[in-house]
Amino acid sequence: MNGMMKAIVKGERRKGAEIKQVPIPSVGDHDVLIKVHATSICGTDVHIYNWDEWSQSRVNPPYVFGHEFAGEVVSLGEKVTKVEVGDYVSAETHIICGNCPQCLVGKFHICENTKIIGVDRDGCFAEYVALPEGNLWKNPKTMPTDIASVQEPMGNAVHTVLNGDVVGKNVAIIGCGPIGLMAVAVAKAAGASQIIAFDINPYRLKLAEQMGATRVVDSTETDPVMEAKKCTNGHGVDVVCEMSGHPVAIDQGLKMITNGGRMSILSLPTKPVTIDITNDIVFKGIEVQGITGRKMFETWQQVSGLLHSKQVDLTPLITHHFPLEDFEKGFDLMNQGKCGKVVLHP
Amino acid sequence: MNGMMKAIVKGERRKGAEIKQVPIPSVGDHDVLIKVHATSICGTDVHIYNWDEWSQSRVNPPYVFGHEFAGEVVSLGEKVTKVEVGDYVSAETHIICGNCPQCLVGKFHICENTKIIGVDRDGCFAEYVALPEGNLWKNPKTMPTDIASVQEPMGNAVHTVLNGDVVGKNVAIIGCGPIGLMAVAVAKAAGASQIIAFDINPYRLKLAEQMGATRVVDSTETDPVMEAKKCTNGHGVDVVCEMSGHPVAIDQGLKMITNGGRMSILSLPTKPVTIDITNDIVFKGIEVQGITGRKMFETWQQVSGLLHSKQVDLTPLITHHFPLEDFEKGFDLMNQGKCGKVVLHP
Amino acid sequence: MNGMMKAIVKGERRKGAEIKQVPIPSVGDHDVLIKVHATSICGTDVHIYNWDEWSQSRVNPPYVFGHEFAGEVVSLGEKVTKVEVGDYVSAETHIICGNCPQCLVGKFHICENTKIIGVDRDGCFAEYVALPEGNLWKNPKTMPTDIASVQEPMGNAVHTVLNGDVVGKNVAIIGCGPIGLMAVAVAKAAGASQIIAFDINPYRLKLAEQMGATRVVDSTETDPVMEAKKCTNGHGVDVVCEMSGHPVAIDQGLKMITNGGRMSILSLPTKPVTIDITNDIVFKGIEVQGITGRKMFETWQQVSGLLHSKQVDLTPLITHHFPLEDFEKGFDLMNQGKCGKVVLHP
Amino acid sequence: MNGMMKAIVKGERRKGAEIKQVPIPSVGDHDVLIKVHATSICGTDVHIYNWDEWSQSRVNPPYVFGHEFAGEVVSLGEKVTKVEVGDYVSAETHIICGNCPQCLVGKFHICENTKIIGVDRDGCFAEYVALPEGNLWKNPKTMPTDIASVQEPMGNAVHTVLNGDVVGKNVAIIGCGPIGLMAVAVAKAAGASQIIAFDINPYRLKLAEQMGATRVVDSTETDPVMEAKKCTNGHGVDVVCEMSGHPVAIDQGLKMITNGGRMSILSLPTKPVTIDITNDIVFKGIEVQGITGRKMFETWQQVSGLLHSKQVDLTPLITHHFPLEDFEKGFDLMNQGKCGKVVLHP
Repeated sequence: MNGMMKAIVKGERRKGAEIKQVPIPSVGDHDVLIKVHATSICGTDVHIYNWDEWSQSRVNPPYVFGHEFAGEVVSLGEKVTKVEVGDYVSAETHIICGNCPQCLVGKFHICENTKIIGVDRDGCFAEYVALPEGNLWKNPKTMPTDIASVQEPMGNAVHTVLNGDVVGKNVAIIGCGPIGLMAVAVAKAAGASQIIAFDINPYRLKLAEQMGATRVVDSTETDPVMEAKKCTNGHGVDVVCEMSGHPVAIDQGLKMITNGGRMSILSLPTKPVTIDITNDIVFKGIEVQGITGRKMFETWQQVSGLLHSKQVDLTPLITHHFPLEDFEKGFDLMNQGKCGKVVLHP
Repeated sequence: MNGMMKAIVKGERRKGAEIKQVPIPSVGDHDVLIKVHATSICGTDVHIYNWDEWSQSRVNPPYVFGHEFAGEVVSLGEKVTKVEVGDYVSAETHIICGNCPQCLVGKFHICENTKIIGVDRDGCFAEYVALPEGNLWKNPKTMPTDIASVQEPMGNAVHTVLNGDVVGKNVAIIGCGPIGLMAVAVAKAAGASQIIAFDINPYRLKLAEQMGATRVVDSTETDPVMEAKKCTNGHGVDVVCEMSGHPVAIDQGLKMITNGGRMSILSLPTKPVTIDITNDIVFKGIEVQGITGRKMFETWQQVSGLLHSKQVDLTPLITHHFPLEDFEKGFDLMNQGKCGKVVLHP
Repeated sequence: MNGMMKAIVKGERRKGAEIKQVPIPSVGDHDVLIKVHATSICGTDVHIYNWDEWSQSRVNPPYVFGHEFAGEVVSLGEKVTKVEVGDYVSAETHIICGNCPQCLVGKFHICENTKIIGVDRDGCFAEYVALPEGNLWKNPKTMPTDIASVQEPMGNAVHTVLNGDVVGKNVAIIGCGPIGLMAVAVAKAAGASQIIAFDINPYRLKLAEQMGATRVVDSTETDPVMEAKKCTNGHGVDVVCEMSGHPVAIDQGLKMITNGGRMSILSLPTKPVTIDITNDIVFKGIEVQGITGRKMFETWQQVSGLLHSKQVDLTPLITHHFPLEDFEKGFDLMNQGKCGKVVLHP
Repeated sequence: MNGMMKAIVKGERRKGAEIKQVPIPSVGDHDVLIKVHATSICGTDVHIYNWDEWSQSRVNPPYVFGHEFAGEVVSLGEKVTKVEVGDYVSAETHIICGNCPQCLVGKFHICENTKIIGVDRDGCFAEYVALPEGNLWKNPKTMPTDIASVQEPMGNAVHTVLNGDVVGKNVAIIGCGPIGLMAVAVAKAAGASQIIAFDINPYRLKLAEQMGATRVVDSTETDPVMEAKKCTNGHGVDVVCEMSGHPVAIDQGLKMITNGGRMSILSLPTKPVTIDITNDIVFKGIEVQGITGRKMFETWQQVSGLLHSKQVDLTPLITHHFPLEDFEKGFDLMNQGKCGKVVLHP
């Protein structure tokens, strides 16, 4: 397929981005071209838009960013066997090497040589995106495109919450950005007893309540550790999902965990964090897990099962829709924290 | 505490039982006397009532049977430290030795020397029951007595369903007696995607639907294996909870499992079962688990968490209430399969 | 690479095989041609040679059989990226679809569409074999070719023994064919406390002792269940690795397991087996696991680690070497059970 | 049993201890009196002897310290049922409440109300010690008393090393005090492929070699992270057992782990440690586990199995024996790091 298409391009090494005409990407033998129907904004995209320290060191403008989407397969590379034209797909955003010790044992999500769509190569804030067939995930025809698009971040939430037992347990979600809010819904669907959500943004705490939190705590008003203990007869929570990246919140998270509990960290603190290993980890016999990406494709199957059965309903979380051209409205809302997920339509 | 009390006594080595005055049991140093507020009928009690082969070989009349209950602590043995008079309790029904290799590693539910309340010693179909303090489980004051009484069989359901992952998975429940029905609700609460319930009794299939089954199958009308495959794009279910004890159903259960799946068997087939190990277990790489009792007390914590958070609501399942004296009405209903749980009130 | 090569061909639908000149196989884009240095005879090959019921229903002569080997890469398909000419390799023998629900979650060894080298397509009893690059496993240069060749069956042993804990535990190995003998060595290396080996062939029981069994039992002379109990203070063994395929042995295996133990079955009983599910599985709370193939490639990494560190030494197990032409001597020995592994050199 | 006995008493709130005559302890209903045949010095005892910050805040002189021992049961409390006079025993040193949420699910080693023998109550540096029967572990008659005495710290090593898979994996042991040295032997016995031991004390690195380390590294001479990578083709080790408590070593440990690996921390760093969570934990998807005590009694069964089968031989590690009276020689050696385990004989 030849010709030009609309895309949001990170063109310069400074804050911002621009809508532009760029060539429709060509497809290699094992690649597929997809017409994008919906694409959603991730916190990572906001980092790139804002041109923060991390993005300055990682991405190479000019390029098309964006990695969450749902769309339709419109053409196939010569050797493609797994999908067909017309398939309705989303995609895993980690492109893996298949050859490192992690890939060899099926732990693809921690491949040593991961490349990320929209970060290390062109992404999906565009009319079309080209991807390896191995990264695609087929959606049921009945799934709305906005829901299909946010399966990728929901996968992060599922990976974090379900990296250990939650049935009948007390779970704290620290940080109620969109993935934290999804984590609330996943914990609920998976049978958690109490789900205590922490944030400092009242708008998002309200959303947390809607997603199923049994208790929401504004950490600027109430001491999080004391509140967590109060909800659990003084014992502390079984599971902490750390989605805030804030050193104080991480310290509080460790202190609110009961003996033998776990903290699963998805956030990316910008600086090293000081931890009382002896009292908060060793004596309590707890486990701290780093969570990255989604298990390929176990997590996608779980996401799919939870959405299909309506155990998780993400509708309340998708608060804004814009045409691709109005992407700046979306980035503004994200920067203000006045939204759940923002979906763009090319 | 002295005096006499009302109790349902298995008095003779033949079908039936009788209501009688018997002495209130005395309590040892580590025992507790409980006034029974509600006690529910288990399939095991029906076996004993009916005086089937198993009960003929296991129980020694005359004695008081029954093992599911909720009640109030009314007196304490001298050395009791874990409960107080006035506590509202139910109880784990396995009394364990604490000394065998299984007990030594905390697998108390498979203690080599287990004694069961109401089977190997006097039970709770009575105004009072005496039990070791170590077997008691404290209930929240707000829990209705009938719900509190059926936590023990719900523990069987929880143990079976949750002996492996179910989130986003397709789960078959074979056999919709009361524990099978509870298993439906537990699978739902724990995030299963599809829950396919099989039975031959329309009354119970209707209850299965109420408890959350996404598909109910009358095995006399529809081929169970074909139906399970049909619901899963031909792949088969991830988990089978076997609650029927029927050889044909077990064979069907094995055949409806997808590669890498599991069958968790709680039922007690009365005869050896013939299994195609090569094709149904080895080539498919599946796991067959025997499930007995409840993990002490991990399962009780899960039950408690699921009930407390209202993730599981057992109300529709408790279909009949009778005064203790009318126990025969309850046993008749159980024998006809025309009920969910039957609760007696002393 | 053109030309002809020597190969053992299963030419007719009857007992036997013949050495023949056949064309060197051509390689597809993602395939690799390997010069075979050593190839070993598996029980499966004996079934095919003997033309038993299973092989009659599964394989399609004429074709080259054999699947265990070590060799050197001599030419590459156009798209091959993972290996180079000169690499010293063995291979996983399951060729998988990459697309079924099992493959999608990384459980490649139970792919619904598995094709097996030397069974469903041409194998390695030949001077050359062509294979997909994704199936190759690189060997260290220092590994002898006969050891490298038997890594595949050692993978079966590793998969079976290590599909649960063995450190400090009592392990029974039922059936001391070559894989059973390897299982003895693996259990030893992995820290099992007692390793009790059962067979009816004194030659192989002697080998079991050499491989590290702490007790060897001739099941025709000593009651296996009583002996297992005697060795474990009456409690039974923690783990049974079932390698015999014999219904009586399977029944004995279940009866010798302690409460909460596991039976991992690698064998393929030729007929359905009758099992006392109630007493041998449910009341004991045990787990029966079907084991097939090798986890790809987790099991290969474990095999590699155990051989590299010399925790397992397979030398005593490789009892016979022949030139490819003398394959019938090897099959005779295998049929008589008078050997460990037999290695052929093309 | 009445009368007086010899004991090492921590009498004053300052450095040192003294040998004294004290009353033989009396036994409660569920307690047992044991004649101590061998008792070994733990790092914790050295802290108490040295009167460091931790011991100043934790222990209450005057009292008898020491917690590792082997001895013979000489008298029983009235209700004791699990042991008999004449039994040869060692003991788990954590006395647990049996009533907290952790105890209720069998995670006794992280009981919220743990009391430790020789720390929170009188210990075993004495001719006799009184203990609850539930804490005793029966030893086989053939086990030497010094080996039996050091089972408790070996339990720490076993708990740390085996809190995840090690078969065929590369394991780093950081810190080669006695427990680190035992960890080397346990990793070896459990089938680890490479065992890389790090310390700054040549005496102990030499012992590490004797215990089975495949590589010993003096961290003052060789960069630990580079060395670990070098041994593993640049990928890093699968498992780090952190036994040093040193912040720099912990940071190095995290950096030498491969993606998806684990760090199990038994050490007790005296100050909070700064950790690069983003790069060292989250992006690598690793797991950090706090390890405390021994699983009761799963760990003891593993210890027992490994010693019984001679998979682990601790003889080279027990470098010094003294009569109880010469305890100061032992503490001096421990303070100098010029010993493995030091055993005292009352």
